Amino acid sequence: MLLAKGQPRTAQHVRARWVATVEPGHDDVLEDYVISIDQSGSGKILALTKASEFSGKVDLHLQNHLLIPGLINAHTHTPMSLLRGYADDLPLNEWLFQHIFPTEARFVFDAPLEEAEEFVRLGSELACYEMLKTGTTLFNDMYFHGDVTASVARKAGMKAVLTQAGLLYFGDDVRFSGLVESNVKFCSELISSNDVAIRPSLLPHSVYMVPEGKLQEVNAAYNAACAEAHVVIHTHLHETKKEISDVLEQTGKSALQILDGLGMLNKRTVAAHCVYMTDEEIALMAKSGASVAHCPRSNLKLGSGIARVADMLKSGVNVCLGTDGASSNNTLDMMTEMQYASMIAKGVTGDPTVLSAREVLEMATLRGARALGLEAKTGSIKVGKAADLVAVHLGGLETAPIYDPLGQLVYTNSRHVSHVWIDGKCVVQDGTCLTLRSMDLAAMDRLVSKLRDFRKTLPSAT
Amino acid sequence: MLLAKGQPRTAQHVRARWVATVEPGHDDVLEDYVISIDQSGSGKILALTKASEFSGKVDLHLQNHLLIPGLINAHTHTPMSLLRGYADDLPLNEWLFQHIFPTEARFVFDAPLEEAEEFVRLGSELACYEMLKTGTTLFNDMYFHGDVTASVARKAGMKAVLTQAGLLYFGDDVRFSGLVESNVKFCSELISSNDVAIRPSLLPHSVYMVPEGKLQEVNAAYNAACAEAHVVIHTHLHETKKEISDVLEQTGKSALQILDGLGMLNKRTVAAHCVYMTDEEIALMAKSGASVAHCPRSNLKLGSGIARVADMLKSGVNVCLGTDGASSNNTLDMMTEMQYASMIAKGVTGDPTVLSAREVLEMATLRGARALGLEAKTGSIKVGKAADLVAVHLGGLETAPIYDPLGQLVYTNSRHVSHVWIDGKCVVQDGTCLTLRSMDLAAMDRLVSKLRDFRKTLPSAT
Repeated sequence: MLLAKGQPRTAQHVRARWVATVEPGHDDVLEDYVISIDQSGSGKILALTKASEFSGKVDLHLQNHLLIPGLINAHTHTPMSLLRGYADDLPLNEWLFQHIFPTEARFVFDAPLEEAEEFVRLGSELACYEMLKTGTTLFNDMYFHGDVTASVARKAGMKAVLTQAGLLYFGDDVRFSGLVESNVKFCSELISSNDVAIRPSLLPHSVYMVPEGKLQEVNAAYNAACAEAHVVIHTHLHETKKEISDVLEQTGKSALQILDGLGMLNKRTVAAHCVYMTDEEIALMAKSGASVAHCPRSNLKLGSGIARVADMLKSGVNVCLGTDGASSNNTLDMMTEMQYASMIAKGVTGDPTVLSAREVLEMATLRGARALGLEAKTGSIKVGKAADLVAVHLGGLETAPIYDPLGQLVYTNSRHVSHVWIDGKCVVQDGTCLTLRSMDLAAMDRLVSKLRDFRKTLPSAT
Repeated sequence: MLLAKGQPRTAQHVRARWVATVEPGHDDVLEDYVISIDQSGSGKILALTKASEFSGKVDLHLQNHLLIPGLINAHTHTPMSLLRGYADDLPLNEWLFQHIFPTEARFVFDAPLEEAEEFVRLGSELACYEMLKTGTTLFNDMYFHGDVTASVARKAGMKAVLTQAGLLYFGDDVRFSGLVESNVKFCSELISSNDVAIRPSLLPHSVYMVPEGKLQEVNAAYNAACAEAHVVIHTHLHETKKEISDVLEQTGKSALQILDGLGMLNKRTVAAHCVYMTDEEIALMAKSGASVAHCPRSNLKLGSGIARVADMLKSGVNVCLGTDGASSNNTLDMMTEMQYASMIAKGVTGDPTVLSAREVLEMATLRGARALGLEAKTGSIKVGKAADLVAVHLGGLETAPIYDPLGQLVYTNSRHVSHVWIDGKCVVQDGTCLTLRSMDLAAMDRLVSKLRDFRKTLPSAT
């Protein structure tokens, strides 16, 4: 039995049929192991022991389950879960400018603070509930009223990377500087609070929405206030052809070049999408140590295209996975995201060996942790790391027979999350979310009813 | 209340929150309707009535459910469910020639009859179970020992299009003619039996596995014996670039031209895959009235490519959907197949309006029925058609909120099939399959154990 030093007496011992550690160099799935989870405060993984060599009392026996590290959603907009299915099957510009933006203006941007905060609270609750039920333990979010999402994440028992507001520049210098200031304050407070579950980020929406001069202002403010901490630089990058050509036309440079020139392309950078990347741009990403948050389903559904993930991985880029918001996906289910990432990479390259089940699981876990600067603490099943764990039930006939549990995890659809632990605390038990049991569904119904009414006033609502 | 003439007293009245009829010209989802299902023998839909105008007693109230026509799997190999996940992430040739074919040779082709039949029986049961649980009511199958699959389909209460054996020509004329003869006999008996649930097909595997002369023999034998009936011509067509160039090199023609030249490209033809099609070939398909069974997940997973479905639909080709076998998918879940069809079409065309939720539901239902010559009897919810119906529960928070139930059906993953009726008989109730409750799981375990042992002897098994 591999015991960590000073193991306390209070630990939960979980025996699982299969364990995929996602530790580098340990590709094989472990069969019939007991994982010991600290319950005395640290919430860490204390030991990983062959069941046949375990002498203690097993607290939970997961006989038909695969234990994996908690899934990490590297790019999402949680409150937008309220807009799930709000505007399907529409051209991107119509979707964004005639449906999503006007609705967000009415309910978030231009709404009274209390209403905007309620939107964010209810949307974040809905999102956290879905993420927990589908095995996500940590998410990298981009939205507004991040303090509200932080409260929801704490209530849910989840980990998150957040800031107060995503930065969009609409020509008002004073308002923009105010936003930057409030973000810096939010991040500084998070850093000094030593909150281990909620970590800070810097959130320029994109180069096309925040021009070079403004990016410089943001970067300088952060460097002044938070230089010591690992503050994630979370942005959209090269999502559509149009966005790339617009920036090129206006500045003579690509968005990637602009970020690089500002010193904003480095190990702290998580660039969502990167659908269109030249060979040179891929090489630059790899060299910089920046991460790509690949969002395959959103890129497909909005007709943006298919990112060159196999090429990026081959070149050494740290590619992780994100769902994007539920309004362009329409789920926050990272297991489905893994499946799509693998399937479409095989389909477009013509090579079924790329993005294997093992590789996409690593993208959804360890590579996500690396992107967020948390690789030392989470992202794989290893003694001393946080017990951020997911048990997936593979016992149904729809996943039978099982030759390789990782293949069934990634390529079938009837695998269900039965248990989730975050920092050793069980937050989903037998498929029931324990932490979000008191969601205000009546308030959600009232808000959705208002959204439905507003939707009817939009130009081409279906 | 729209009553069909002579409505008997015995009917089941099901009230559903939403009904998607998939009837041409009726794009809107009906809200709060009662569907009356005959229970006196015909199993037909007797009436579709606004709930507010319904005066009878409702037998079942599906408050958070969308009722859709039964899904139609237009191309599958049911017994291969036993090989689900058997050889993931491998190059196609290695997958087929080093894993699948040797295993099928050992367990089916060269096995004693009793063993081969057991493989087909257990695999078909596993497949039918999964298909029922995911809302499929009718499948177009291609495998061996079709009589065994027919028995399983009858036990499951499902509809199927079958023949005795898929035709592969390995140079043995006598054996091939024997196979053709047994197939013709199987089909003739089906036709004269007037079995409404199991319908016949002619199963040449493909032009690359059955050369022109042999196809002519098959066609002549069928025309002599079954000319009066609608015998589906079920074949693989233009699945990979290699297959197309091989046929072209050997014959100077494309497989499509060969089928057309033999008079085998017509309204009875269901061509699986059609990944690579020129504009001229698409025009020929449209003109011929032949159907394409699009199998998006299998084409992706094996690295075959992505079919030009949006172009085919635009040109008037009847494109329906199939899962292919579970060994290259790895599920038989038609709801997921709808989702992939829509998502990848949007992604590769760059147009998010193509293959809308409405369109892919039609592909998975009415267009499938049309392909199999059964459009007059099933494929949409219409008074007088068979009550082949599926109720999908959309009440979970993972599918909330609901602005358009069809969008949530197609684009989310947490929609669950609660009820399935086939010819008016309830075969799935509250998520439980009623017809396949006595599957021999011990025999399945024994067989899978043998398969696992055999798999270890294969050259590059993972």
